[in-house]
Order: sequence, then structure tokens, then C-alpha cells
Amino acid sequence: MAWIDPEVTKKPKKPMFLCVLSNTKTAHIPKLSAAGKTAELTDYTPAGDAELIETGNIISVPVLPMTPPYDTPTPAIMTRSALKLTEAPYHFINSGLIVTPEVPCIDLKAKPGEDIREPIAVRDVQGIYERAKFLAKRLRSQIDHVVIGESIPGGTTTAMGVLNALGYNGNVSSSADENPLELKKQVVEEGMKASGLTFGSLKDEPMKAIACMGDPMMPAVIGLVAGFQGTEVDVVLAGGTQMAAVYAIIKHLGFNTEKLAIATTRYVVEDKSAHFVELTKTLEVPVVYIADPGFGKSSLKGLHRYETGTIKEGAGAGGAMYLAGLFGVTQDEFRSEVENVCKLLKAGQ
Amino acid sequence: MAWIDPEVTKKPKKPMFLCVLSNTKTAHIPKLSAAGKTAELTDYTPAGDAELIETGNIISVPVLPMTPPYDTPTPAIMTRSALKLTEAPYHFINSGLIVTPEVPCIDLKAKPGEDIREPIAVRDVQGIYERAKFLAKRLRSQIDHVVIGESIPGGTTTAMGVLNALGYNGNVSSSADENPLELKKQVVEEGMKASGLTFGSLKDEPMKAIACMGDPMMPAVIGLVAGFQGTEVDVVLAGGTQMAAVYAIIKHLGFNTEKLAIATTRYVVEDKSAHFVELTKTLEVPVVYIADPGFGKSSLKGLHRYETGTIKEGAGAGGAMYLAGLFGVTQDEFRSEVENVCKLLKAGQ
Repeated sequence: MAWIDPEVTKKPKKPMFLCVLSNTKTAHIPKLSAAGKTAELTDYTPAGDAELIETGNIISVPVLPMTPPYDTPTPAIMTRSALKLTEAPYHFINSGLIVTPEVPCIDLKAKPGEDIREPIAVRDVQGIYERAKFLAKRLRSQIDHVVIGESIPGGTTTAMGVLNALGYNGNVSSSADENPLELKKQVVEEGMKASGLTFGSLKDEPMKAIACMGDPMMPAVIGLVAGFQGTEVDVVLAGGTQMAAVYAIIKHLGFNTEKLAIATTRYVVEDKSAHFVELTKTLEVPVVYIADPGFGKSSLKGLHRYETGTIKEGAGAGGAMYLAGLFGVTQDEFRSEVENVCKLLKAGQ
Repeated sequence: MAWIDPEVTKKPKKPMFLCVLSNTKTAHIPKLSAAGKTAELTDYTPAGDAELIETGNIISVPVLPMTPPYDTPTPAIMTRSALKLTEAPYHFINSGLIVTPEVPCIDLKAKPGEDIREPIAVRDVQGIYERAKFLAKRLRSQIDHVVIGESIPGGTTTAMGVLNALGYNGNVSSSADENPLELKKQVVEEGMKASGLTFGSLKDEPMKAIACMGDPMMPAVIGLVAGFQGTEVDVVLAGGTQMAAVYAIIKHLGFNTEKLAIATTRYVVEDKSAHFVELTKTLEVPVVYIADPGFGKSSLKGLHRYETGTIKEGAGAGGAMYLAGLFGVTQDEFRSEVENVCKLLKAGQ
């Protein structure tokens, strides 16, 4: 486990940031996801995140992705700031969006995920995986360091579902102040039952665990990782408990994990309702980078809410800030840029 | 005008190949396009080209893109060969496909083009342009040399339409042995009438020329070029008379054309039915690279047909071979790789 120290980290010559955008109907379960003002508005969150990262504002979605009750702005503000400061190249990947953004996305022809209480949660897992692998193979000659983030409302519940199917206990994190863990556990239990699964029963069938309990973001990220296997590319999974679940699948698939790491924010690590640190220790994740944007020092109230547990992570925010750190961007410079992004949006005031 | 000479050309450090895939209903006019076995099958040609370039074979499309009467294989075989030999990174861009391929495509959310005999040929020209420009801005920090090709059946007719609207005479090329020029002229004439245009009447409104007489590939390529303006990126438009038409639009938009070039095959240059060389001279294209795959020396009959005028160019084939040339690939090595691709496909025998 390592806190970012730009003094000792190596600036990559050919970095890239990828953000996988997906929807799962699991997010429509009332009170499950706080990644949007209402359960239905979470459909727009990944598209809104992409538009915000690319342009500094939303274009086609009706409202900025915010988390009630204080309209804390989406973590995509951090991702935008990091990409602006580093000028790192990036792509958005559409892996099962209900609403597509008005900015270019690489389409993996995935269908949105179903409610995990249905027998099938993700269709064509293998196809999504293969197409993502093609994509990584195309990109790998021009990359030495790739950070892969995600934006999928409801994603911590599907993460819990997959962890359960693979045989891991451990609470997942949440975008809400109050993590609705009991509800998540109940949804996962119903999902396991609908798919005829018991705890750990799919430990040898990780792709089936995605199909039954996961979401369409997962096979996309795993296919990308597969396409970078055997190369010199450092792969950083940018996210909290969701990326821990992705890492678990990768481990169960028997991939080489030497060049892999997870990067997330301090807010996930400090989330007492979740077991991120224990989980990454159990999974033997080689390196975990922790980015601390120090929002407690900010004059913007919306940003303060991150310190007290709202949102915490998403849209690869922690990994994007980690990347900025590799480029020598300090915490103060980073926070200042995030504040600029918020001011232009009139958000988080 | 320059023939490729690897001795004097500079190998790019950060090359990229982009292929814009589009459809226009103009290709449904019987006997207009030979980029497919029948007018309806041309719908599948761009998707088939992408699948072939990525995987060496077709995946979802029903037949390999071939041109009758001798089933000459699509020029995408050249593109695949060049990308294999150079390992250059690449992307496909979906700008108005009717049929999408089973490989990752960057989606510009464009609608397929209408028959140019309708009043509107391309919808949302500005939107497609803006999204393509975003994409180029994302990519430009990792590129020093970009080759942009296209695959759009019926594209020489829309090229003729735009050239007419901008005030250029000059015959366009064709994928058929016998260029159906009279039919193309008649279609363009009807299209000009349907849009209330006369020769050159849109010389000051090039974007409107696309909307009335063009196809959705054009605003995508032009948006990409716009996103690379003012940078050190060398931009090579890979195509024959279609890319000459794109260049004409760029010129009329008043872009800086210093870093621009066109690359095509010898077969387009030698097409006596078309006026490629005159057109590029009139347009003052700074550099035209001409790639000669020397298919006359091949043992495969299908490849021989290129020498006698079938297909000639497409899917950025000339530009892709030009790129291979920059990497020091010789004509013999290139042709040998194309023959390998054909043998695996059992095509062109």
C-alpha cells in the first residue's frame, strides 16, 4: 500500500486514461445508488460524467450528476482536472450504456446490465471481453502506463454480488453518506438465489460470476487487462471496492498480476462501512495507490462533503489524481484546479 | 507529387491510423457502387472492412467485401497488411454506419447519409464535426503523424456532388472496372436540383455543401483535421478522389493546409476515367504520396485485377501502404504480406 509521493514515482512517457461507462438496471432499485439525484436519473450519470470530463460541462444530459442531500458534484470533476493538468490522452468506452453522451465513445456493443435479481445480469460477457481485448491490443504499442476508471451507478452492489459468488466476504463502499449495506446484502442474496448460486460457488467460473451477478463494466475492464497481458504496460485499476471486485475476477482467471495496481481515493480507504483495505490484502493486490485531494482545505462546501463521506470515488477520480501526481502535480495545484472546474459549473458551492 | 521513397522519408515516432466508416443511401442506387457484390450488400462493406483489418477475417457480415465480376477482394487487405507490418496503433470511427462491425469503433453518433437526390444528404454536419474535433484533441498529444482513411460505398458520387457544389469540374474515380460516370453525373445533377444548387453556388458554404451533396464521412474527417490544426501533427488524408473532395472542403473552410497531404494508390492516379492528378493540382494539395503495391507481380488473380482497374483504393489502403513505407517496408515485403492475408481468406485466387 503506497501513498502517492511524486518524488519517488516515475513519470510515464506514454500514459493513457480510459474510462469505461456502463449502466445496470440494478441502479433502479430505490435507495441503492446515490450516484444521481434519483434512481432514474442515475441512467444519465455515466454520460454526464463523460461530457463533463471532455468539455467541463454537461451537454445532453438533463442535470449534472450530483449526490443528495447537498448536491455534491460527481467525482468526474477530479478526473477532468487531472486530465487537464497532465494533458494525458484518454478515451471513453461505452460498455452497455442506457444513455450515450454527446462526446466520442468507443463502442463495445454491450447491452445495459439487468437487475442482478434476474437470472442473467450481463449478456454476452465473452463478446464484450473479446472486443475490449482487441481494443487494448490496438492501443498497447503507444502506451506504457494505463489508468482504467469506471462510471456505473449501482456498481458497488454488483461488485458485492461478484465477490459473494467468488467466495469473498467484505462490505463494499457507497456513494451515499449512509451506506445502504443491508439493502445491498438483501439484493445480492436475492440475486444469488435467482441464479441458483451459493457463497463461493463460482470461484472457478469467474466469467459466469459476471454473467449472473456482475455488470457490463467488468468484462470490458477485464478484456482490456487481458489485451495488455505480457507487455511492458503498467495497468492501474482506478476505483475502490468495485475495482477490488474486478481484481478478484482477474485473479480467479489466473492472469499475471505483476504489472497491476489499484488506485483510489483516501475517502474509500477511510470508509468504515466498507472493507477496502482488508479486501485488497486478502486478494494480495501488489500495489494500492491512495490519492488524497485534501478537500478539507477547500472553501467549497460541496467538496467538503467528500471528507465526511459523500461520493468518495468514481469516474476513475483517484486514479486520475494518481496520474497527475506522477506528472508532479501537487495536492494544492490539483485541488485548486478542481475548484476552478466547480466554479465554472457553479457546483459544490 | 511524390512517389514513396523510404530512403528520404522520416519514420514517425508516434504514428496512428484512423479509418472513418460510413454509409450513404446513395450507394443503394443500382449500378452506382461496386464496393460490394450487390447495391444492398454495400451496406456491409465498411463493417466488413473493419472486421477484416482487425481480425484477418469477417465476423458478423454475411460476405467478404468483394467487387464483381472477379470477386476482387476489398482494399482492406492492404490496410490490414500495413498495420500488421508496422504495428501502428489504429482506431475505427463510426460516422453514420447502417451496419456496425463486431470490433470496437469510436462512435460519433452520426446518422447514415441519405440519397443525395433528397434535399438533405447529411444531418447534423456541425455536430459530427464537433465530436470528431474533440476526438482529435484527445489524441493529439500522443501522435506526430496521422493517416486518415475511409470506407463508404457510394463515396465517389458524393465526392463529385460536393466538388460540383464548390465549383470544381473533374471526374471522380470508381471501384468498378467501368466507371459509371454518366450515371454519377445524372445522380449529382438530380441532387443539385433537389437542393436548389448550381455549379459552385456553395463555394463559400462548404459545410452546407456536405449537408446537401456529401456524406457523413466528410464532417468526421474534417473535424479530425480541425482538431489537429495548430499542432505539430502531420495529417495524411488516405484516399483518391474522395479525399480530394475532403481537401477541397478544408481549403474552402480556410484551414491551414501546411501539414496536410494526400496519399493514395497508383491505381487511382492512373485511372484515365478520373481526374485525380488535375484535381489535386487545381486544389494545390501540398504533397501527394502515391503507393504502388506492384500487384502485377502477384501470383493471385484477384490482386492482378487492381492493375487493370478494379477497386483501386479504399479503407485508407494507399495511406496505410505509405505508412508501411515510412517504416522501411519494401514493396515486395508488403505484397507478400497482402498475399498471406488473401490466402488465409481464400480470396483473390
